[in-house]
Amino acid sequence: MLGSDYAGQDCSIARALEVVGERWTLLIVRDAFLGVRRFNDFQAHLDIPRAVLADRLRHLVEASVLERAPDPDDGRRTVYRLTPAGIELWPVLFALLTWGGRHGRRPATRRRFQHATCGGELDAHGRCPRCGVVPGAADVITMRVPGPEQREDPVSVALRAPRRLLAPLEHAA
Amino acid sequence: MLGSDYAGQDCSIARALEVVGERWTLLIVRDAFLGVRRFNDFQAHLDIPRAVLADRLRHLVEASVLERAPDPDDGRRTVYRLTPAGIELWPVLFALLTWGGRHGRRPATRRRFQHATCGGELDAHGRCPRCGVVPGAADVITMRVPGPEQREDPVSVALRAPRRLLAPLEHAA
Repeated sequence: MLGSDYAGQDCSIARALEVVGERWTLLIVRDAFLGVRRFNDFQAHLDIPRAVLADRLRHLVEASVLERAPDPDDGRRTVYRLTPAGIELWPVLFALLTWGGRHGRRPATRRRFQHATCGGELDAHGRCPRCGVVPGAADVITMRVPGPEQREDPVSVALRAPRRLLAPLEHAA
Repeated sequence: MLGSDYAGQDCSIARALEVVGERWTLLIVRDAFLGVRRFNDFQAHLDIPRAVLADRLRHLVEASVLERAPDPDDGRRTVYRLTPAGIELWPVLFALLTWGGRHGRRPATRRRFQHATCGGELDAHGRCPRCGVVPGAADVITMRVPGPEQREDPVSVALRAPRRLLAPLEHAA
């Protein structure tokens, strides 16, 4: 039961969960899609112990989902950004988001997702009904549906405005 | 860090992970799509302690992803089957499977997925390129791509033949 591998499970779902199945990992990847790149910003938004965050980030870098790069604002620091393989996790996140919005046991703030090219609102399959394409994450604009504010950390506040996925968030926390 | 909730995370992805984010849970759901319904069959295929399996099944029933029903072959026993909400998890599993097949750190047995109605092979978005529709799980036929056999438990052997998702597996273990 310990560890994150599924050595005896010979299927691609198990292979994916070995990379992204640990607690908090997919929420870190979600934040990376929303443009979070700095350790302190992940930490402010996720509110988890720094050691847990560091462990999950290291695992994601080792698995080539995230890559480290110098912070353009401060070369002594590091940012984490999604690799091409990481960006391919978008359908996983969108499917979880769709399901959680319909069947989660508690309400959650909703987000809308639009195709940046034409403004079409993505359907439950992540498809733009206007164009018929399934846009990649870089062509998706997300905006928060107004509702009761539940988090007031600086990253949550910064993420309320409409934004294009993968566009780097300015330093927030 | 304990527990499976994400009380401070106000988003639909967190709501979904509260239901299916625990270790082994999505592999149990995968097996349910493949037609596994009996406790002993889940256990034979997943090879996990019975207490862990019982805990995960109880959690999935509480969350209305699975429902218990009398075993049609033996009314004193119980089977677990996906609810309509559980069946809506298919896009999550298909997205993980697609990603794991491309980016998992170890090879896995591959499966093909065809649209039952027309035989079209589903693309990476779960869409049938012949019809243009994204078939629901009940309209998908899966078959194992021949490769080295890694598991020889009776459920793994039974799942090698082509089968329609959600069709109950005959008693195997």
